[in-house]
Amino acid sequence: MLTHRITVGGIARELPVVDVGGVSVALLNLLGDTELTEAAADELARRLPAGVEGFVTPEVKAVPLAHALSVRTGLPYVVARKTVKPYMVDPVTREVVSITTGKPQLLVLDGNDVERLAGRRVAIVDDVVSTGGTLEGLKELLRSVGAEVVATLVVFTEGDANGRDDVIALGHLPLFPAAAGA
Amino acid sequence: MLTHRITVGGIARELPVVDVGGVSVALLNLLGDTELTEAAADELARRLPAGVEGFVTPEVKAVPLAHALSVRTGLPYVVARKTVKPYMVDPVTREVVSITTGKPQLLVLDGNDVERLAGRRVAIVDDVVSTGGTLEGLKELLRSVGAEVVATLVVFTEGDANGRDDVIALGHLPLFPAAAGA
Repeated sequence: MLTHRITVGGIARELPVVDVGGVSVALLNLLGDTELTEAAADELARRLPAGVEGFVTPEVKAVPLAHALSVRTGLPYVVARKTVKPYMVDPVTREVVSITTGKPQLLVLDGNDVERLAGRRVAIVDDVVSTGGTLEGLKELLRSVGAEVVATLVVFTEGDANGRDDVIALGHLPLFPAAAGA
Repeated sequence: MLTHRITVGGIARELPVVDVGGVSVALLNLLGDTELTEAAADELARRLPAGVEGFVTPEVKAVPLAHALSVRTGLPYVVARKTVKPYMVDPVTREVVSITTGKPQLLVLDGNDVERLAGRRVAIVDDVVSTGGTLEGLKELLRSVGAEVVATLVVFTEGDANGRDDVIALGHLPLFPAAAGA
């Protein structure tokens, strides 16, 4: 199997290159990789712009990273969920399309979290930003509830997202021809 | 709104009591509550039985807790996902029914994680165990891939799960009449 080597804060990984339909990507998985998550949180906390009052992360792969950033900075975080839960009060939703699933996906903020976000300067936290579909959807959702997105922190940009000056990243992942991961 | 007061390692919270269809429950949400998650991880790490080689948690609410336990103990963790992802290799699945959603839900282990689990003694980590539906399903799934479940660590038992001697819990949540949360 083709792999792609990355390092984050001195921690190295060989990421599997997998086909996600028409293109192959190096698969970063922070879920279950405590050492890499902690290293990424160390590096991103160091790059955090002044004035950020909290983090927002889309469910689920960057949740441990958001928690680790919160531990380091003392700032709270909010998780944008994928589905409306029966216990939510006045949830606010927006539909986005993810490159890794190819399907429309919902981003949902619970009403209680909306109250915590209104009028706050927040940083979005995610593992990888690629086409930016999830990112743009989350930004619009946050603006609609009165939060100001002042930074986006990711472990890696991917493909065309390289060199985006609105994203703080620790590195870049190339895209591979589809056959590479087959 | 009715609330239910809990304390974990000296950290107090007023949990909202919400109707989840026929019954009301005190709603624990570790996602976004860094202080409570860290306190729970401290307390559960202290109670961890000898011989545990790793943690398994069902997506998503206890993921930050599993990460925090992994940080404290140096043991790895695996997340049982809710859906099969296009990039998974030989995923293993099982269907369970969750009390908080009332819907059948899938538990999925990626093939790569199955390899990490085979022959290992693992502890299940979750936020709340209630009817035990998710817990039993996850146990069966883990047994089917050759892992031995030697402990279950939760923040709270709930309802009839009180006094289960196979679960290590930091406290207990009562169930409330449905009208209480309406």
